[in-house]
Order: sequence, then structure tokens, then C-alpha cells
Amino acid sequence: MSRRAPACSGAGLEMPETFFEDHAVGQATEGGYKYVDKREIVRFATLYDPQPFHLDEAAAKQSIFGGLVASGWHTLAMMMRMLVDHHGGRLAGLGSPGCEQIRWLQPVRPGDILRFRSECIETAASRSKPDRGIVKTRVTVLNQRGEPVMTVVTIGMHRRRPA
Amino acid sequence: MSRRAPACSGAGLEMPETFFEDHAVGQATEGGYKYVDKREIVRFATLYDPQPFHLDEAAAKQSIFGGLVASGWHTLAMMMRMLVDHHGGRLAGLGSPGCEQIRWLQPVRPGDILRFRSECIETAASRSKPDRGIVKTRVTVLNQRGEPVMTVVTIGMHRRRPA
Repeated sequence: MSRRAPACSGAGLEMPETFFEDHAVGQATEGGYKYVDKREIVRFATLYDPQPFHLDEAAAKQSIFGGLVASGWHTLAMMMRMLVDHHGGRLAGLGSPGCEQIRWLQPVRPGDILRFRSECIETAASRSKPDRGIVKTRVTVLNQRGEPVMTVVTIGMHRRRPA
Repeated sequence: MSRRAPACSGAGLEMPETFFEDHAVGQATEGGYKYVDKREIVRFATLYDPQPFHLDEAAAKQSIFGGLVASGWHTLAMMMRMLVDHHGGRLAGLGSPGCEQIRWLQPVRPGDILRFRSECIETAASRSKPDRGIVKTRVTVLNQRGEPVMTVVTIGMHRRRPA
């Protein structure tokens, strides 16, 4: 028997589920801690974004970035991990139809430490499916100097609280 | 000495560079071939999106997806790899400020084979920086049945052709 709740969970969840009604415009959250490792930058880029400024220090020095930087898709993935860890896997009970307005604002470099801030910006009950609603959240990823490195609007589908 | 051009390249590129002027609204491209491996789905999700329907076949069967599915962020990463492979690393010479309208339309499952279609939807020379312009491209990722599984509008910054 473990005293710890599972790091992620679906059915059999020990933590209380978050319903659509638990979200309100203006609600803000902060969290996350992600150390950006140079080997992880290179490993992600090798698999998914093999451009020189993500792969090789010397080539990156010659690029507009002036040094090795993480793929923007890697920054998105690191953001998602911080969100899942923070919310205990209750974020996407009904999945997500997509997201909006990804902005890569600053390079993410080896040694950076990332965290996130999020703010609910819109909620809308579904008209066609009365058991669910949509929650839009603006997520900002910041580095250790407090500089926003990325913003994105996530769209989550949430169950409505049973009557 | 190798006869092959480098898989990705920056300075020292052997392939002709693509400039802003080489893009025009309506231009379409097709390409890519990505076999979606179950172990890769689980590996990506373990690192970046540890939710049960991306990690565990039994838990995924109980979820709304009815089986294991790739993280949407993983689908984005696989798309980027197909684009980099197709364009030889010439896509993001000046980086990208972001992207728009990501839509996850269909689950991506183990055994799927993905490819992409893209269409240039907007070009705009920069007013503040006369050496560059922005190219917006709608990218659709399709599975082996020709079903769109994801769409996204990418934004690329491209050098203008030297006078």
C-alpha cells in the first residue's frame, strides 16, 4: 500500500477530480520546476527537430541564436510535463481539441530552469454535449530570470459535475 | 568525403537556400513517412505527458480513447521531424515566432503511418526588418487512411533574397 497518490491517474484516481464548474475566468496557478539539460536538448532534437542550432554547440554559435537552444516543440513538451505533474493528470480527462497562439519569445538554453504561470481566460459549456465544457487557459513558461520564454493558450475539455 | 548532403545544415549548406521570395500563397507540398511505434508513444509520454491513455494499454482501454494514443505534443514533434527531413533543415533559418490553431482531430495510435500536406496561406515582408519576411503555412498530418489527424498553422521567418 502506498501513501502517495499516483503521479498520473485516470480511473481509480485518489485525488478529487476537477470538473468544468471548478474553473473560472481569472483563476491563476503557478508551478513547475524544470532544469534544462544540454543532453536532453540534443536528444529531443535528434529525434524530432534535427536543426544545427539544436544539435551542435559549434554550429549553434554561428546561428542567429549564438549558442545551443532547445527546440520550441521541446519547450512545449517540457511545459506539458510541468502541467501534468502539477495537476496530477486531471487536466485532460476528455482530451483536448487543440491549442492556440503559441509564441516562442526567448531562446531556452542549457542550464535554464523553467516554471509556469497559468490563467483561465474563458469557460464555455458545450451546447451539443451537456456533460462537458471547454476551458481556455493562457500558460506562460518563464526562465530563472523571470523572463517569459513561451506563451500558449491551451484548450481543455472537462466533465461537468454530476447533478 | 561524403557524397550525401548533411541531413540538416546551417552554415556550409550544400542545398540551395529557400528565401522569402520563393514562397507564394497557394503553394502546396506533400511528404513524410512516419511509422508510429508503440514504444515511442510510451517513451515520449513517460518524459513529457505521463497520462494513462498515453502510457498503459489497459488504462487506455478504459479511457475515452478506447486504446493507447500518442500525446498530441508527440504528434507535433513527429510532424516537425517530417518537415525538417523534407525541407533539409532550410525551414527555420531565422527561427519561428510561434504557431497558431493546433487542432487534434483524430487519435494517433500504434501502427499508424503519418505523412503531411502543407499549403502556404500568407506571406508578409517585414516592415521593420527589410532583410526578412514571414511565411504562414497550414500543415495537415494524415494517417494511412488519409484521415487528417492534426492541423496547425506554422509561422516561419525567412531571409529575403539578397539584391
